[in-house]
Amino acid sequence: MDRRSFLRTSALGGTAAAATTLAAPAIAQGRITWRMVTTWPRNFPGLGVGAQRLGDRITAATDGALTVQVFSAGEMVPPLQALDAVIDQTAEMSHGAAYYWQNKSVGLSFFTGVPFGMTSRELAAWVRYMGGQEIWDEIYDQFGLQGFLSGDTGTQAGGWFKNELTGIEDIQGMRFRTPGLGGQVWQKMGASVTNLAGGEIFAALQSGALDAAEFVGPYNDLALGFHQICKHYYTSSFIEPGLATELVVDKAKFQALPENLQTIVRDVCQAEYDQVASDFYANDPRALATLVNDHGVITHAEFPESIMEAAAQASMELLTEIREGGDELTKKTAESFVSAVNIMRTRTEGTDLGFLRARERYVTF
Amino acid sequence: MDRRSFLRTSALGGTAAAATTLAAPAIAQGRITWRMVTTWPRNFPGLGVGAQRLGDRITAATDGALTVQVFSAGEMVPPLQALDAVIDQTAEMSHGAAYYWQNKSVGLSFFTGVPFGMTSRELAAWVRYMGGQEIWDEIYDQFGLQGFLSGDTGTQAGGWFKNELTGIEDIQGMRFRTPGLGGQVWQKMGASVTNLAGGEIFAALQSGALDAAEFVGPYNDLALGFHQICKHYYTSSFIEPGLATELVVDKAKFQALPENLQTIVRDVCQAEYDQVASDFYANDPRALATLVNDHGVITHAEFPESIMEAAAQASMELLTEIREGGDELTKKTAESFVSAVNIMRTRTEGTDLGFLRARERYVTF
Repeated sequence: MDRRSFLRTSALGGTAAAATTLAAPAIAQGRITWRMVTTWPRNFPGLGVGAQRLGDRITAATDGALTVQVFSAGEMVPPLQALDAVIDQTAEMSHGAAYYWQNKSVGLSFFTGVPFGMTSRELAAWVRYMGGQEIWDEIYDQFGLQGFLSGDTGTQAGGWFKNELTGIEDIQGMRFRTPGLGGQVWQKMGASVTNLAGGEIFAALQSGALDAAEFVGPYNDLALGFHQICKHYYTSSFIEPGLATELVVDKAKFQALPENLQTIVRDVCQAEYDQVASDFYANDPRALATLVNDHGVITHAEFPESIMEAAAQASMELLTEIREGGDELTKKTAESFVSAVNIMRTRTEGTDLGFLRARERYVTF
Repeated sequence: MDRRSFLRTSALGGTAAAATTLAAPAIAQGRITWRMVTTWPRNFPGLGVGAQRLGDRITAATDGALTVQVFSAGEMVPPLQALDAVIDQTAEMSHGAAYYWQNKSVGLSFFTGVPFGMTSRELAAWVRYMGGQEIWDEIYDQFGLQGFLSGDTGTQAGGWFKNELTGIEDIQGMRFRTPGLGGQVWQKMGASVTNLAGGEIFAALQSGALDAAEFVGPYNDLALGFHQICKHYYTSSFIEPGLATELVVDKAKFQALPENLQTIVRDVCQAEYDQVASDFYANDPRALATLVNDHGVITHAEFPESIMEAAAQASMELLTEIREGGDELTKKTAESFVSAVNIMRTRTEGTDLGFLRARERYVTF
């Protein structure tokens, strides 16, 4: 899910909090206070909660030497102005997803997730051991920023459909809410893609303005009630094999911090990359059990073959367009990404997939 | 791989280093120095390197307020005495794998990995969100210790075989080096299991004393040269779907640390859980490419069906034996583990597996 439109609706409110936050960063008794703006609604499961926890963990680990004040979407700036707030020095940090800023550089999408791209484990391996961070730094250097991975949802769900899908013909003209690069893929496949805010999806499904919608996964979807209208839940997304969040810092201010505070920020971001994924791996299936057992939702692990074939073709086309249509840095990012995923697939498919298939087929605890 | 026997051979040497380390923990100018003993040879890819890096990261994040001195296997105590070194206060921390200490409590195996058990993502979710850490704390409380996850290899390789396996009949009496719970599973299946130190495996394969051997995965296996004798590499292990490492601390001393130092130790352990996995996901496939392209190794992602069926049955039997033969705490651990994996499988199989299958089948970058 590209939360862009969802978040627009969260840009209201929070003005009381904002009033206190426009002061310069406080430095008292060797203590530094940094403002973190986020793209997430307060208490948004997994991601909003994760941003708050990340700030709190930095404050705790530094014993307050670096105190982080967290502002949820709209509390200081609208969610999609979070990055600009750091660039124009209204805040020192932003927490969101790199692909929200693809208007600044299309290459940033690769650090969140792209259709048929990397899993959360592969993304971290690329960033930490295969040159990904260095390219990411090159991109953000242009804006005086630096980004760190700070969470991942794991593979998301494919979406909610009123009717079971039997083949590619079923999605022609289907009115589907699915934003971002994934939306572009479904559009190429023949769907009529629209982008609605998260809070507007339910009503659009109910009125018949939408035939289908995808948002995140069971943990986030359950609360929005899509199951009351759509009984068919395709649980595996090919457009979002992972969705990574980022913490972005003002690079000059970051480098001016004492070295151990810089280290702590990096350590906590990496710890949160694991924490957020753990949250989703534990709580997605609990929510899914509620959807199935209490609400009679019918799950499908895979889309029909003709849809998958078209999806793969459309995704590869999109990747080629990004690679060839972008600037030099976007080209470099795409090439590094593809080369890394091609190496890592041998392990993921030869080792992880082999095990998962075997456990599924042979084992009942 | 249970590294137990491999590590026995590493218990030599390092006495010079040991001489400096038996002094009481140094506290000078508010600085505390803690000794970390490990079960890994110095510079052992992924794991030994990870233990050293974990120590260094704690030192850096605390700006030396908690300085960690790392002693590799045998430098202060033999590897399999690492936990006892913390219990008897020779060291403050140990870095190893919980299943090395299953003679203290069989339940500890579950926090490293068991046949057909949890992937690295599932294990972290269980520990952090589904009661795993609390049970682990109960077990280690008995010894005045506390454990934290500190790394994971991801799913390991199935092993090296001189001949291609066609079915269950091929492994009857086959002399196979595979230690630990995995070894017990292969033994139940009809193999003749032996446990040799890592450094002795190559010679045993060469002399004909062994027909097959499993160790870790490509990243660690490449250096030991098994490919010179065994051309068939089964790349997916059903006995080690993940292998988690642990940092264990002296609980009373840990709780006496200033709160932010405790926080940093926890944060760095969690960051390392991601870092070590990233290392394996990046470097296993690079090593595998060398094995295949430069050394003509033939890879197989899955064992033949009759072997997998027997493996699943033997693994379930072993799990039942552990569950029913252990003390109350072991029973409680096994039940929590099984209940958690049963919930999480719906996500792993319905979401992750769906995506991985689709990418394998439909996409070529």
